[in-house]
Amino acid sequence: MTNDTTAFTLLGTGEMGLALALALLTAGHSTTVWNRTAHRAEALRADGAQVAGDPGAAITASPVVITCLYDHASVHQVLDPVVDRLRGRTVINVTTTTPDESRELAAWAAERGITYLDGGIMAVPEMIGGPGSLILYSGAAEAFEQLEQVLSLWGRSRYLGADAGLAPLYDLAILTPMYTAFAGFLHGAAMVASAGVPATELAELAGPFLTAVVEPSVRHSAEVVDGGDFAVPGQQSLSFSDLTKFITASEAAGVDPVLINGVQLLIKRQIDAGFGDHGFARIFESLRRS
Amino acid sequence: MTNDTTAFTLLGTGEMGLALALALLTAGHSTTVWNRTAHRAEALRADGAQVAGDPGAAITASPVVITCLYDHASVHQVLDPVVDRLRGRTVINVTTTTPDESRELAAWAAERGITYLDGGIMAVPEMIGGPGSLILYSGAAEAFEQLEQVLSLWGRSRYLGADAGLAPLYDLAILTPMYTAFAGFLHGAAMVASAGVPATELAELAGPFLTAVVEPSVRHSAEVVDGGDFAVPGQQSLSFSDLTKFITASEAAGVDPVLINGVQLLIKRQIDAGFGDHGFARIFESLRRS
Ligand SMILES: NC(=O)c1ccc[n+]([C@@H]2O[C@H](COP(=O)([O-])OP(=O)(O)OC[C@H]3O[C@@H](n4cnc5c(N)ncnc54)[C@H](OP(=O)(O)O)[C@@H]3O)[C@@H](O)[C@H]2O)c1
Ligand SMILES: NC(=O)c1ccc[n+]([C@@H]2O[C@H](COP(=O)([O-])OP(=O)(O)OC[C@H]3O[C@@H](n4cnc5c(N)ncnc54)[C@H](OP(=O)(O)O)[C@@H]3O)[C@@H](O)[C@H]2O)c1
Repeated sequence: MTNDTTAFTLLGTGEMGLALALALLTAGHSTTVWNRTAHRAEALRADGAQVAGDPGAAITASPVVITCLYDHASVHQVLDPVVDRLRGRTVINVTTTTPDESRELAAWAAERGITYLDGGIMAVPEMIGGPGSLILYSGAAEAFEQLEQVLSLWGRSRYLGADAGLAPLYDLAILTPMYTAFAGFLHGAAMVASAGVPATELAELAGPFLTAVVEPSVRHSAEVVDGGDFAVPGQQSLSFSDLTKFITASEAAGVDPVLINGVQLLIKRQIDAGFGDHGFARIFESLRRS
Repeated sequence: MTNDTTAFTLLGTGEMGLALALALLTAGHSTTVWNRTAHRAEALRADGAQVAGDPGAAITASPVVITCLYDHASVHQVLDPVVDRLRGRTVINVTTTTPDESRELAAWAAERGITYLDGGIMAVPEMIGGPGSLILYSGAAEAFEQLEQVLSLWGRSRYLGADAGLAPLYDLAILTPMYTAFAGFLHGAAMVASAGVPATELAELAGPFLTAVVEPSVRHSAEVVDGGDFAVPGQQSLSFSDLTKFITASEAAGVDPVLINGVQLLIKRQIDAGFGDHGFARIFESLRRS
C-alpha cells in the first residue's frame, strides 16, 4: 500500500463514476479505474487514468477506493472477493443505498479494518464539479476531514455525522419532496389537459409560484416541527387545507387522485384526532408510526 | 344602478375579503361592504367603506359585485334571494370553487343577464397588493378588460379564457404540487427524525435544493408532455426513478410511506406497460383516465 493520499481508485465507471473520475483526473490526481464491462473504463485511459484488469489490482493501486456501482448488492459482489486487500484502506461508497444498507457496509468494514465513508450524491453526472452539485457524507469523520479538499472537486460537500446511514437518510428525505412535487405538477398538467390547456402554460405559472412558496414554507414548517407546537398562530390550518375540492375536481377532469388522496389521508388523520385548527405541519404526526 | 365603474360592492369580509376591500379603499374606490356577521364589515367603516345592512342593499350600490365567501353553496345562499338586483351587473366571484361549480355559476349568471368573472386567488391575505400576489381570472373577457386596472390593485392578474372553470382549474393544478411538496418535505422530516435529526437541519439542505430543481424540472417535463414523446433523450428514466429504496427506508424509519406509494404506483403502471426507459414525465399517462 502506498502512502500517496492523492491517488484514488474508482470501481464502477458508469455515467456517474465517469464524471467522478474525470474530476479527479482533471485536477491531476493519480486515478486507477476498473469497470465490470471493460470498455467503459478503457475510455478513461485517454484522460490519463490507469486502467486495472480486476478489482483486486485496482484496489492495490491506491489508499482510497471509491465505489460507484449499481446498488448495495453489487458493492458486496465487487468487494467481497478482494476484501483482504482493503484492510487499512478507505472506502468511499457513493453507490445509492438505503440507510440500513450503509450501516451494514460500515459495520462490515469496521470488522475488517477498513475505514468507511458513505456518500450521497445530490446531482446528476453533468453537474459534478459545478456549483449546483451537493454531496452528503457520513461515517468516518477523519476520512472526510483528510479528503475534504479532494471531495470538493465533485461539488459542495457536507459531513453529517458518524452514523453511516445519515447520508442516504438525508438523501432520500431531500429527494422525497422533489419526487412528490414533480408528480404533483404532472397531476396538475393532467387536470388542465382536460380543458385543452398545454402543460407548458401551466408550468409558466406554476414554476415561479413553486419557486416562491416551497423554500419559505419548508423552512417555516421545519421550525414548527422542531418547536413542537403545531398550534402556533400564523399558519394555514389543517381544516382550511382539506383537499376535498382537489379530489372532486380531479375526478371530474378524469385524473386519478392517488397523489392527493395520500396528502388528504394525512390531513384527515389529524382533523379526526381533533387537531383541525392546528397548522399543516401537524401532518408530521400522521407520518410517524408509533 | 349607477354607471360609476369605480364603485364596488364586496360581499364577505372574512380574512381575504377584508384584504381585498382595503386595497380598493386605499386606492380611493367607493366601496360598499356586507358581511353575514355584521361587526366584521363594520370594522371597515373607519377605512372609508359604506356598510350595507343586507346583500340586496349592498348590490344596489355598485355595478360590480365581488363575492368572497366560504364556498360555492354560500355564494348561492347569499345571491339567490337577491338575484333580481344583479341583472345588468357584474359578479366577480373569488370564492374558492371547483371548475364545475364555477361553470355552474357562470351558466346561472348568463341565464339571468348577469356578467360573470371567476377569480382564483394565489395568495394569502397579507400578500394582497404585494409583488407576490397572483390572481387568475376566467369567464367574461370584457369584464376583465374593463376592470383590469382595478384588479391589479390586488396583485398580478392573468386572464385565462372564457370558460369560467379555467381559473379554479389552474388554481387547483398549481396548488397540487405545492401541497405534495409540503407533505413530501414533512415525510422527509419524519425520516430524519428517526435518527434524531431536527427538521430545520433538513430544511437547510432541502430548501435550496428544491428551489434549484423544481422550477427547471417542471418546465422541462411540461415540454416533454406537450411534445408528446416521452422517450426523448436526456431525461431520468422511469426505471431509474423506481422508489423501492424510499419505501424500504421509510418503513425502516417508522414513517408511513403513503405519499411515496402514490408516486411509485404511477411509475410502476408505466414500467409494467413497457415504458421503463421513458422519462419520468410519462407518469402523466398514469394520471389520465381514459
Ligand atoms: N446518474 C445519476 O444521476 C446519479 C445521481 C445520484 C446517484 N447516483 C448513483 O450512482 C450509482 C451509479 O449510477 P450511474 O448513473 O453511474 O449508473 P450506470 O451508468 O448504470 O452505472 C452502473 C455501474 O455499476 C456497475 N455495476 C452494476 N452492477 C454491477 C455488478 N453486479 N458488479 C459490478 N459492477 C456492476 C456497472 O457496470 P457495467 O458497466 O458493467 O454495467 C456500471 O459501472 C448508482 O447507485 C446511482 O444511484 C446516480
Ligand atoms: N385566506 C386565504 O389564504 C385564501 C387564499 C385564497 C383563496 N381564499 C378563498 O377566499 C374565500 C374566503 O376565505 P377567507 O380566508 O376570507 O375565509 P374566512 O375568513 O373564513 O371568511 C369566510 C367568509 O365567508 C362568509 N360566509 C361563510 N359562510 C357563509 C354563508 N353561508 N352565508 C354568508 N356568508 C358566509 C363568512 O361570514 P361570517 O363572518 O359571517 O362567518 C366570511 O365573511 C374562500 O373561498 C377561500 O378559499 C382564501
